[in-house]
Amino acid sequence: MNDSVLEQLDRVLAARKTAADPEASYVASLHAKGLNKILEKVGEEATETILAAKDASDETSRAELIGETADLWFHSLVMLSHLNLSYREVLQELERRFDLSGHDEKASRQ
Amino acid sequence: MNDSVLEQLDRVLAARKTAADPEASYVASLHAKGLNKILEKVGEEATETILAAKDASDETSRAELIGETADLWFHSLVMLSHLNLSYREVLQELERRFDLSGHDEKASRQ
Amino acid sequence: MNDSVLEQLDRVLAARKTAADPEASYVASLHAKGLNKILEKVGEEATETILAAKDASDETSRAELIGETADLWFHSLVMLSHLNLSYREVLQELERRFDLSGHDEKASRQ
Amino acid sequence: MNDSVLEQLDRVLAARKTAADPEASYVASLHAKGLNKILEKVGEEATETILAAKDASDETSRAELIGETADLWFHSLVMLSHLNLSYREVLQELERRFDLSGHDEKASRQ
Repeated sequence: MNDSVLEQLDRVLAARKTAADPEASYVASLHAKGLNKILEKVGEEATETILAAKDASDETSRAELIGETADLWFHSLVMLSHLNLSYREVLQELERRFDLSGHDEKASRQ
Repeated sequence: MNDSVLEQLDRVLAARKTAADPEASYVASLHAKGLNKILEKVGEEATETILAAKDASDETSRAELIGETADLWFHSLVMLSHLNLSYREVLQELERRFDLSGHDEKASRQ
Repeated sequence: MNDSVLEQLDRVLAARKTAADPEASYVASLHAKGLNKILEKVGEEATETILAAKDASDETSRAELIGETADLWFHSLVMLSHLNLSYREVLQELERRFDLSGHDEKASRQ
Repeated sequence: MNDSVLEQLDRVLAARKTAADPEASYVASLHAKGLNKILEKVGEEATETILAAKDASDETSRAELIGETADLWFHSLVMLSHLNLSYREVLQELERRFDLSGHDEKASRQ
């Protein structure tokens, strides 16, 4: 199921990137505003994720954290799309790494 | 394939969360240091992703952006795991949203 | 001169914190919305400062960086005010540190 | 007093920027590593400031918030120095703005 979520989202994002009318689509409007605007959103959603995680004590606030994390991943997907990169490359990188165990995995990230 | 990446990573993270020896695993050491340390990493990787995206002009720097985005997603997965949440809930939230079109999708996020 | 800028700003922020009408003052509206809103602004302005610094090649973009840094300091002053702290304590901390030289100064920050 | 803190710090930062030995000074080592490293520190300290503010309930944690805010301002001063800008320009910008009242002040920042 999850695979199809990212795959479907990838197709939606690709279609909206080239949408004729930026007014009609939030994604198209982000691409029209350019990379800085998209990166501002990535930074903003990272901060909101951090704040939501600090407040994640009950069911309501936990749902907010899920929503903020979705926002963070969503805008990082738009960033990748803007630069003609794909979530597939990120997952391949994670796949390559998580075979490793313990601190080796950290070393591979540096 | 991708589904199995996140699903496998989820199992690896769950196993390492309860690892006996924090010295032996980077993930276990993050859990042992606590939520603030994990959130510092989320913020740090968000900044590094933003800087890598600004520099993403050639193949080398594009590979760095993929690596930083993988770091950002990875540490947000550790954050979810630390709070007993799962990537599945984030993907379900994204699935719920991306049926919507245009600015409706933004409205649903607020 | 600069001293009086921070000192005057401190008085303005104190006066606006207790302003009767949040509608009339941006500062009062931030206090009314609470700590999370103020911290979202700190994170947002940090990201915009970083992006402006990456773009700071000519006079126009350098003026933007000055503006974003002013935004960052301004919102961190509102944060301090919200928690009944003052810029004076931050400057005293910096004063205490910068007597130190070389890597000693870094050690003192950790 | 405070004026002299920023003014003295400005002179210290200027002297260390051109220090012969990056090993001997944390500031010189940041300049040697370049703008991205300095901006990573700005982002990192912003996140740590936000986390410290969320935890600022007692005297110990309030002292930590002062320390993190000092780190944030310090690294933004190094950033300005790296780009041959000065804290004076930031304070002049703040001075220009805070004559304005209420939401006008916000408008001027946008």
